[in-house]
Amino acid sequence: MTRIARLAERLEQPLLVTKAANIRYLTGLVDATNAMVLVEPTGEATLFTDFRYADAARALDDVEFVQTARSVVTTVSGALGGRSVGFDPAHVTVAAYDELRAGGVELTPAGGLVEALRAVKDAGELDAIRRAATLSDTLFGELAGERFVGRTERELAWWIDRRFRELGAERSSFDTMVGFGEMGARPHGEARDVPIPVGTMVVVDTGCVVDGYCSDCTRTFLTGDDARLLELHALCLRAQLDGLAAVKPGARGRDVDAASRVAIAEAGLAERYGHGLGHGVGLEIHEGPSLRPESEDVLQEGNIVTIEPGLYFDGDVGVRIEDLVLVTPDGAERLTTVTKEPIVVS
Amino acid sequence: MTRIARLAERLEQPLLVTKAANIRYLTGLVDATNAMVLVEPTGEATLFTDFRYADAARALDDVEFVQTARSVVTTVSGALGGRSVGFDPAHVTVAAYDELRAGGVELTPAGGLVEALRAVKDAGELDAIRRAATLSDTLFGELAGERFVGRTERELAWWIDRRFRELGAERSSFDTMVGFGEMGARPHGEARDVPIPVGTMVVVDTGCVVDGYCSDCTRTFLTGDDARLLELHALCLRAQLDGLAAVKPGARGRDVDAASRVAIAEAGLAERYGHGLGHGVGLEIHEGPSLRPESEDVLQEGNIVTIEPGLYFDGDVGVRIEDLVLVTPDGAERLTTVTKEPIVVS
Repeated sequence: MTRIARLAERLEQPLLVTKAANIRYLTGLVDATNAMVLVEPTGEATLFTDFRYADAARALDDVEFVQTARSVVTTVSGALGGRSVGFDPAHVTVAAYDELRAGGVELTPAGGLVEALRAVKDAGELDAIRRAATLSDTLFGELAGERFVGRTERELAWWIDRRFRELGAERSSFDTMVGFGEMGARPHGEARDVPIPVGTMVVVDTGCVVDGYCSDCTRTFLTGDDARLLELHALCLRAQLDGLAAVKPGARGRDVDAASRVAIAEAGLAERYGHGLGHGVGLEIHEGPSLRPESEDVLQEGNIVTIEPGLYFDGDVGVRIEDLVLVTPDGAERLTTVTKEPIVVS
Repeated sequence: MTRIARLAERLEQPLLVTKAANIRYLTGLVDATNAMVLVEPTGEATLFTDFRYADAARALDDVEFVQTARSVVTTVSGALGGRSVGFDPAHVTVAAYDELRAGGVELTPAGGLVEALRAVKDAGELDAIRRAATLSDTLFGELAGERFVGRTERELAWWIDRRFRELGAERSSFDTMVGFGEMGARPHGEARDVPIPVGTMVVVDTGCVVDGYCSDCTRTFLTGDDARLLELHALCLRAQLDGLAAVKPGARGRDVDAASRVAIAEAGLAERYGHGLGHGVGLEIHEGPSLRPESEDVLQEGNIVTIEPGLYFDGDVGVRIEDLVLVTPDGAERLTTVTKEPIVVS
């Protein structure tokens, strides 16, 4: 059954799909930044996009193509005037909403329907993500043999991005983070033109894209065997293993998150771990389900999520360890399998 | 005067800035995907963002930092309850709008205010874009000496992305397009694992990022000196030069666009040129002003725009020639200066 047909089964009214990743998932159209798809409960689907994507749109199966003006919403509001359709409030701007309403389109909130399908990966998706994760493993294995001390964060980040391409990935799945000391203490750090010194920890957070699907993996390397650094690394790994052990179908995202906080709280460092445990990964590097204290999500077989606790000491040092895992019938399968033991690099 | 102060001068009420590129422009905070900034008419500014960006946010001048919950809009709707603020309907989702309203925030549409500032580049921005354009020139100069025939589109795209990094750019400014034949006939093509043959045209559209600012340039190479291909290339260049000659302060975007259509229409090929002439470039690869048939924009000194007509023959071949230009007091200065004459590569 096609993805459009599976979505249609869940619809009671037509759904206007506006987000590029959702459109790619349903139709295969890549990077359509000016497109909308109307999916009917009957399974019929109409793709609206402009001249720039017309040739690619015509080549698609399963969708009727309507070429639009440069502003896709203008054409869609004309075409759907008088009809009642669902939309996702999280992916429609107030400006687009107002233009559709002005054109006589009646809009009913219907959020997260495509995302719910995307959260459970099919065989083709799992295969692409496995291949991306295998490239991550290869890369992290090679990285452990590279010289760190004296090279800048940016040099190492570029080495990583280059290796991913040479290994056959489309690209890195986000801006590769290589951050030591105070930059490692930023959960979303940015590689600097600063050489890596001895006696610190270096957070390396990166991933790659294969057939449109992302991998995501973090390891923290040491440039010295200072006892405090080893202790922080061990505590982070404990938290990571505790989170991993809590993953199974039926577990609530918030409970898996909570499991990863126990050891850190016992060490009196709860406030150093200020972000959620993880997130889903697929066509987007951040998608559902969410593993966070405020998450309402419940894990299902076929979800692919990150498990990535961290400890951050502002202006000083940080550590994060992350695996990408598949939710299996009885727990979790690690898709990133490179060692998590502390590695002292030179 | 700071950018925040210049924005404040134009405000009659506080403005809630929600778009990442606008937040970077005003505060310097990079890639804040979960942040909002409230700018008061007095020039005071408050940055709302979560734990992950806290260390970077604290290091900024000119803004007060408020650390938020993981959902920035939840904290902001609480902090601004009872106040009346402007917002940009094009950059606020219906979901965020509803949550702010539910929190008692009174919202008034006030679109495009930061974009209007960003459309006129200051000295620092111009310097960054000049450096990015110079790297583009270097790269296209080198590319003309590379072998095309027998290499795949993806191989050449990767050669380009790698050279930009080696030359010192942060990265390519968008997915590099290398497309021959039918892929060149797609205005937004995607590089394939297909070797380039003799006797075709290869559209190469790429750019790079320096200090956060983009360059953008297209040249179309020939792998044969077939008379029809040379004629199409010459017609596209004629259109490009006509567009370029129409650029000056006070010119309307639609009129500059129209100037680039005359020669193509005279050749009876109007419908082969289905996109607009160009767009502004800066922190984003697509920003204001717009050069399109439906554009309401008027060019100003200090704008930086692309001039990029193209001709597209579905399933057959395409050609596009693009410069990045600065609007000067009396016309246009090309920032990309590499030759536009047809180059036959081997």
